[in-house]
Amino acid sequence: MKIAVLAGDGIGPEIVAEAVKVLNALDLDFEMESAPVGGAAYALTGHPLPEATLKLAMEADAVLFGAVGDWKYDTLDRPLRPEQAILGLRKHMGLFANFRPAICYKELTHASSLKPELVAGLDILIIRELTGDIYFGQPRGRRVATDGHFPGAEEAFDTMRYSRPEIERIAHVAFQAAQKRSKRVTSVDKANVLETFQFWKDIVTEVGKEYPDVQLDHMYVDNAAMQLVKEPKRFDVVVTGNMFGDILSDEASMLTGSIGMLPSASLNSKGQGLYEPSHGSAPDIAGKNVANPLATILSAAMMLRFSLNQEAAAQRIEAAVQAVLAQGLRTPDIWSEGTTRVGTAEMGDAVVAAL
Amino acid sequence: MKIAVLAGDGIGPEIVAEAVKVLNALDLDFEMESAPVGGAAYALTGHPLPEATLKLAMEADAVLFGAVGDWKYDTLDRPLRPEQAILGLRKHMGLFANFRPAICYKELTHASSLKPELVAGLDILIIRELTGDIYFGQPRGRRVATDGHFPGAEEAFDTMRYSRPEIERIAHVAFQAAQKRSKRVTSVDKANVLETFQFWKDIVTEVGKEYPDVQLDHMYVDNAAMQLVKEPKRFDVVVTGNMFGDILSDEASMLTGSIGMLPSASLNSKGQGLYEPSHGSAPDIAGKNVANPLATILSAAMMLRFSLNQEAAAQRIEAAVQAVLAQGLRTPDIWSEGTTRVGTAEMGDAVVAAL
Ligand SMILES: CC(C)[C@H](C(=O)O)[C@@H](O)C(=O)O
Ligand SMILES: CC(C)[C@H](C(=O)O)[C@@H](O)C(=O)O
Repeated sequence: MKIAVLAGDGIGPEIVAEAVKVLNALDLDFEMESAPVGGAAYALTGHPLPEATLKLAMEADAVLFGAVGDWKYDTLDRPLRPEQAILGLRKHMGLFANFRPAICYKELTHASSLKPELVAGLDILIIRELTGDIYFGQPRGRRVATDGHFPGAEEAFDTMRYSRPEIERIAHVAFQAAQKRSKRVTSVDKANVLETFQFWKDIVTEVGKEYPDVQLDHMYVDNAAMQLVKEPKRFDVVVTGNMFGDILSDEASMLTGSIGMLPSASLNSKGQGLYEPSHGSAPDIAGKNVANPLATILSAAMMLRFSLNQEAAAQRIEAAVQAVLAQGLRTPDIWSEGTTRVGTAEMGDAVVAAL
Repeated sequence: MKIAVLAGDGIGPEIVAEAVKVLNALDLDFEMESAPVGGAAYALTGHPLPEATLKLAMEADAVLFGAVGDWKYDTLDRPLRPEQAILGLRKHMGLFANFRPAICYKELTHASSLKPELVAGLDILIIRELTGDIYFGQPRGRRVATDGHFPGAEEAFDTMRYSRPEIERIAHVAFQAAQKRSKRVTSVDKANVLETFQFWKDIVTEVGKEYPDVQLDHMYVDNAAMQLVKEPKRFDVVVTGNMFGDILSDEASMLTGSIGMLPSASLNSKGQGLYEPSHGSAPDIAGKNVANPLATILSAAMMLRFSLNQEAAAQRIEAAVQAVLAQGLRTPDIWSEGTTRVGTAEMGDAVVAAL
């Protein structure tokens, strides 16, 4: 089993180091190989996703990813910016199914912006399609408008699109995930305005007929953004497109108050996956030993489960994370009165000790 | 001064009736004429936006709009569904500037899903572009894919687009609105992925140079969806495109806990406007005298201010609404222990009495 370790920018190296520490402590037989990605790779090689890094990722069974992005690269041309690395990995590896759990940990209920009764026990799984939609649709660019409100004016444009098989495969992923949970799927669309999402809704409905044990409902994206705030616990599995999923999964993870705890997985049809924390690269706190490594450690657990077929090891990690929380250990992002403040490395050590 | 009154579906007729009651009580000299719209118009004429209704709206100085939509029209073909009426009015009247305030009323702070300290005193103005973007961009439809992941498969597609003058005019609206407030604008985009929103960001930045007294910052839409939950009071004026504005304005209004209180205005370049509550048609509670008419009454106040040049009358209405809240009167959506529950009509009467 081979793991590509891509730490990236900002707090990426620190949090990935802790996840690697935990993986090493499991005494399983896998090979880990690191490569530069994002701004760090640009600085070294002139490209955010160097050929060698992509090759390593494509040949590995799984990618453990930190985070990319730093203000210092903001002025680069778009194709050279750090986030192109993650978009390139998704595209070239065909990582179409993104799993973004939004879980409110019992010990951290108070940390949510929402009233505790609204989030206590929250456990949503957002499944975001990750290789289609307006993220990758062609054509896109700038041109002179030939119609619309201002013919003759300069304009920019992008193409939103979804094909039938793209929608079918992500729908199957969602229904199958729901079968292992409370058997409810909410498909989020904007069928009242967009052709693409009327098609989405039609096909998800069709696929749903193959899963009579799962209850399917449909919700417009604007309403979903509201219901997440109003009554998040009404949701179980949410499935949606790339663009809406980007927005709603971030909203949902912030509702939990512990985005520093939330892992994510992005899978392709061969079982390969990229595993990364739901949070970003936080360059403002990089190198200070204050970042929370738990989202990355839990991403490593997802990696063991989904790509490396090591369910027992995944559960060991998850139990160890629960244990350190129960011990009252907290990095600054989740610290509160009466708990013990620890740094990034100490948190990783504590998880290893609890394994 | 002529007002077109389009009540629509669900609770539309009840809440608009109360706003009309309040307008009549002002003793100003205007003419009001009603016409059917939405599902109600479809039922009468076979079209959600009949020619006569559109003509009335285009000739009026302002449109007072209730709400459209009802499940019973869900199975109609898209061009006949109630929401096409509002999209048609926006398009034909050129209502490009949508003002969506998200205000947390002192008396209703407890009604928010968020902890009181996060929303007390909240006052955000979301300015959403309303006639461009992927809502109206051509081409759109279904076809056979010629490239992408599954060439040869059936696909659906839409076009996102913005031209320079479209972005310029909404940016000017936002900067000018900010000049009357706390002089801060947050422009929300997805420039890291979309050509359209890199262009948006570039042009908003350019226009911003003409307003050196206003502080401009840029935020990605996914981050904006998070920051609204985490720290909503960091925002003052938010300006964004049609699609992102749809999602974020609904999220923001729900944060306040009193979406039943929030008005909106949609303006064109001639000062004509359409005024409607931020909430929907709520067919489940229609006809029961429980809907909150205050958002519609406050929309009428915005109409007096923006399209009818009656600032004093607008302020009288706003003061009357404050007074009924201070009296402890509450429709069921905002009711809490210790306040007096009233119905739709009684709330309207109370506002009239307080004028
Ligand atoms: C960095 C950016 C391109 C990316 C996205 O929009 O997908 C990020 O927001 C995410 O959700 O992983
Ligand atoms: C009804 C629908 C077409 C509309 C929109 O998406 O603009 C609504 O959600 C709104 O925000 O007014």
